[in-house]
Amino acid sequence: MTPDALRALVARALENSNTAPANATSVATALVQAEIDGQKGHGLSRVPAYAAQARSGKVAGRAKPRVMRPRPGAVVVDAADGFAFPALDVAIAELAAIAPAQGIGVAAIHHSHHFGVAGRPVERLAEQGLIAIAMGNSPKAIAPWGGTQAIFGTNPIAFAAPRRKDPPLVIDLSLSKVARGRVMVAAQKGEAIPEGWALDRDGRPTTDAKAALDGAMLPMGDAKGAALVLMVEILAAALTASHLGFEAASFFTADGPPPRVGQMLLAIDPDALSGGAFAERLETLLAAMLAQPGVRLPGMRRLANRAKAASGPIEVDGKLLAEIEALAR
Amino acid sequence: MTPDALRALVARALENSNTAPANATSVATALVQAEIDGQKGHGLSRVPAYAAQARSGKVAGRAKPRVMRPRPGAVVVDAADGFAFPALDVAIAELAAIAPAQGIGVAAIHHSHHFGVAGRPVERLAEQGLIAIAMGNSPKAIAPWGGTQAIFGTNPIAFAAPRRKDPPLVIDLSLSKVARGRVMVAAQKGEAIPEGWALDRDGRPTTDAKAALDGAMLPMGDAKGAALVLMVEILAAALTASHLGFEAASFFTADGPPPRVGQMLLAIDPDALSGGAFAERLETLLAAMLAQPGVRLPGMRRLANRAKAASGPIEVDGKLLAEIEALAR
Repeated sequence: MTPDALRALVARALENSNTAPANATSVATALVQAEIDGQKGHGLSRVPAYAAQARSGKVAGRAKPRVMRPRPGAVVVDAADGFAFPALDVAIAELAAIAPAQGIGVAAIHHSHHFGVAGRPVERLAEQGLIAIAMGNSPKAIAPWGGTQAIFGTNPIAFAAPRRKDPPLVIDLSLSKVARGRVMVAAQKGEAIPEGWALDRDGRPTTDAKAALDGAMLPMGDAKGAALVLMVEILAAALTASHLGFEAASFFTADGPPPRVGQMLLAIDPDALSGGAFAERLETLLAAMLAQPGVRLPGMRRLANRAKAASGPIEVDGKLLAEIEALAR
Repeated sequence: MTPDALRALVARALENSNTAPANATSVATALVQAEIDGQKGHGLSRVPAYAAQARSGKVAGRAKPRVMRPRPGAVVVDAADGFAFPALDVAIAELAAIAPAQGIGVAAIHHSHHFGVAGRPVERLAEQGLIAIAMGNSPKAIAPWGGTQAIFGTNPIAFAAPRRKDPPLVIDLSLSKVARGRVMVAAQKGEAIPEGWALDRDGRPTTDAKAALDGAMLPMGDAKGAALVLMVEILAAALTASHLGFEAASFFTADGPPPRVGQMLLAIDPDALSGGAFAERLETLLAAMLAQPGVRLPGMRRLANRAKAASGPIEVDGKLLAEIEALAR
């Protein structure tokens, strides 16, 4: 299928599931882009769960994000228990206006839902010439350092910077050692996981994928990574007046209350701060990296996937496509 | 010695070394605080090298930081090849005024020098009710992921958040797996270092501390940590129009040009973004962490060291003290 046809199909599936057309278009655009970029865990695989949550009312598919501007450099977006993407669209548009005028802007999104690919909002801001940082929290998956019980989400940090001639440089990482999805896949296949990925429910290191799903994921970078997980939880959830990871309901099931997680976006005007030197400094840095054999810039796989998708139809798993088509009927 | 006596002694040593009194006081305050907080690598051990650099002119001890305000939310501080601390003082004062008014403020410091304890500037902002983030770059120590040659500094990230009744929560970490100082100590003692800390000059993993000093430190968190190192280099150096890690001269030797590294500080008004909910959200999060046996909050050792120093004289290594006293004569 072409990206356009796929977007229309997903939007129709959501509209049929108690979602306003504008919201359905926003969500469909984000999920199809994730699929194109090779981030299938945040792509079309989410459509059935999204639709079910909109039908049950766990997600308010007809919500309209509300914007407040408490300070010249600060915008607050209430996602109003709807999908995250319409709220992110609003935050991006606000920051694109605020950052060049103020030098920097911050957006706090609350009453929000699954962030999707955290690298995408920052990339969109960088496409407009801004440096951007995004952080989000998610339902509990990681234990505090020294502890045994999951409190924090896998809490992504994303960063993007505009480049002189190339597409933006994008860094996008969750702070768990590996994505929880990889443990879910291992559990489904009955395979073991490597040591160092997760703890069981008693806080002991485990290689049993099923025990890991009942326990906690380990952070990247041990104690230092755990400190970053805490930082992201504070910025994405406490600063945005959102549910903490351990208070947030699942992004997957249709029952229970809205997750009400938070996202924080920052945008900075690089020329205002660097006096116009930023582009040269960045290109000098990236050239020094690429002068070493074996070094690749972050985000290159995303661009390769995107280029591949541009030249042909997008292949979607047949069972998933049938499920989405049934929802769209 | 009491903190006051120690500060006066260090200030005198610097004033005798071609440093303006106001700058000497700023530097002495920062170094003595680091010593009190147990961060000896950023404390009094730096005095002889600082004095030598001020004498040789590598650091402009008489420089006065210059401030520009290119946008309402952005301040640029030119450290003018002087010590970092006077420039940091200016940036903190500016951000403490900007953030409550604008919601968020950013300071870019360029033509700067050794950052010291990155956690201290953010703590000072948090003591004024602000959330703060600081990043700095430093002379090359870490290779890009997949590469063999050091390009990046150990690039600290620091974060602080104000608390309702307690001192600010402070997170402060360098992005190398371990501090380079630990490899230097092992090399001096002729001891081996654990695998995973460093590469030799050919990019091979090494346990030989001397070979590691000729090679590169490994980042915390493998490829994800390496991506964060790049992010910090972009924000602390490219955004601030500073020297990149591989362009920056040593912080230790008195010869060569000024390092001209950069620092970036962010300050956010938590109440503006959270509608006043921040303090409750943060305390709820920290209480959930501390409810688990074995969990400690980051920065507790710093506070314990500080409390200990408040109740008695500060013990300084005799040889180092004699060296500083000789400089102060």
